[in-house]
Amino acid sequence: MTDNPTACILIIGNEVLSGRTRDANLQFLATRLGELGIPVREVRVIPDVPETIIGVVNEVRARFTHVFTTGGIGPTHDDITSECVARAFGVAWEVHAETRALMAEDYARRSPPVEFNAARLRMATLPVGAVPIRCSETTAPGFSMGNVHVMAGVPRIMRAMFEALAPSLERGQPILSHTVHADYVYEGQIADGLTAIQAQHPGLDLGSYPYYRGTGGGVALVAKGTEAAAVAAAAEAMYALLARFGSARQGEPAPEG
Amino acid sequence: MTDNPTACILIIGNEVLSGRTRDANLQFLATRLGELGIPVREVRVIPDVPETIIGVVNEVRARFTHVFTTGGIGPTHDDITSECVARAFGVAWEVHAETRALMAEDYARRSPPVEFNAARLRMATLPVGAVPIRCSETTAPGFSMGNVHVMAGVPRIMRAMFEALAPSLERGQPILSHTVHADYVYEGQIADGLTAIQAQHPGLDLGSYPYYRGTGGGVALVAKGTEAAAVAAAAEAMYALLARFGSARQGEPAPEG
Repeated sequence: MTDNPTACILIIGNEVLSGRTRDANLQFLATRLGELGIPVREVRVIPDVPETIIGVVNEVRARFTHVFTTGGIGPTHDDITSECVARAFGVAWEVHAETRALMAEDYARRSPPVEFNAARLRMATLPVGAVPIRCSETTAPGFSMGNVHVMAGVPRIMRAMFEALAPSLERGQPILSHTVHADYVYEGQIADGLTAIQAQHPGLDLGSYPYYRGTGGGVALVAKGTEAAAVAAAAEAMYALLARFGSARQGEPAPEG
Repeated sequence: MTDNPTACILIIGNEVLSGRTRDANLQFLATRLGELGIPVREVRVIPDVPETIIGVVNEVRARFTHVFTTGGIGPTHDDITSECVARAFGVAWEVHAETRALMAEDYARRSPPVEFNAARLRMATLPVGAVPIRCSETTAPGFSMGNVHVMAGVPRIMRAMFEALAPSLERGQPILSHTVHADYVYEGQIADGLTAIQAQHPGLDLGSYPYYRGTGGGVALVAKGTEAAAVAAAAEAMYALLARFGSARQGEPAPEG
């Protein structure tokens, strides 16, 4: 997995930090990026504060192959992501003529027509050099500026923007995953055995996740990696480990494992 | 709000970064911390990588009044938060005698008794100087080390640990919030008016959040701050703004507003 491109997600918005809104984008993006072989290595949730956005964008775009931002590209005063990305890159923030034309056409066609006012024009204003991300959900675009991909915070729109962007992303080996379950087996029992399996497969990421149900609990063991044979071998060792504690074989193979 | 203590949340775990697990702790913590007057200023999701955890803990404990971590304090090889916090503070990581005794008593009492093996002893091992966070859900504790509060990732246990910790936290003025709704009013219409209200109340945090339903959409405007009179005044101005677009009065006052 070490040769794969990497991703950082920036969730921009006071509403997530205050607890008003529960983020609904992280899990989608993390899952899709894993499928594309672009593992997410860090996520930050940051407020609508210009200096914070600019500083964090510049820090993480230097450290990760791709940065994906969600939130802050609407028409209101707290929608400052686009301006801040322009400032982070040291470029002007200007009305994008093609986008303005597309939005004007869209607004004129609505019934009743929508006024293309100054607030809405902010959504047609992009860092100079940005490549718009257009999707079917809205004519107000996201954009890519270098390796920073700026998307809406509304999940439906974010997903459409991501899928429009995905074909152009540099990809890595897809991350394969094999999960093994056991009811009534507990982490404290299998920890040493799992450590031994991890030591045999240093290129894999093995995880252990307890779960709880009405009648008791159990554990899910997960092997992740880019090499199908190694993932399959680790999964077999995990099945054998759980069988020592009386568990029948329960699991979900890797997509290509 | 500027005099209030501040919080940073660290969500530690590969399972959140990979999309396997949807974080269920951020919204709870952000909401509860807001009620305590300790607004969350940043959240990071980071992997189970020692250098990353140590570096990030040291960075954020210097920048925020409180740091709350979730995840990575179980018995398995990927549970490394406790060790890493010890290394971040430059202290030894040692078996905590009182905790070991409590866990031994608990394990012996179970039927059948639970083996207190090496893996489980890791959960009784704490940075020297840490203060255990004990809760009714488990005898394996969280802990506070200076301003870093280390809690479990399992939501039920995390919540119990947080509530056990909460009475000892330095608090600020509670963050009051007043939300005003309007169906069939759109952000692009009210953006300028909202900017004007924000300019009149620089001490408040005003937000605008579009929503979508089967039959159309609308907008929720939120005023947040520590001064009840200012929050109420901004809410009145927001009601008046929405009324200009034909909306009836719909909202949720601040708890003390």
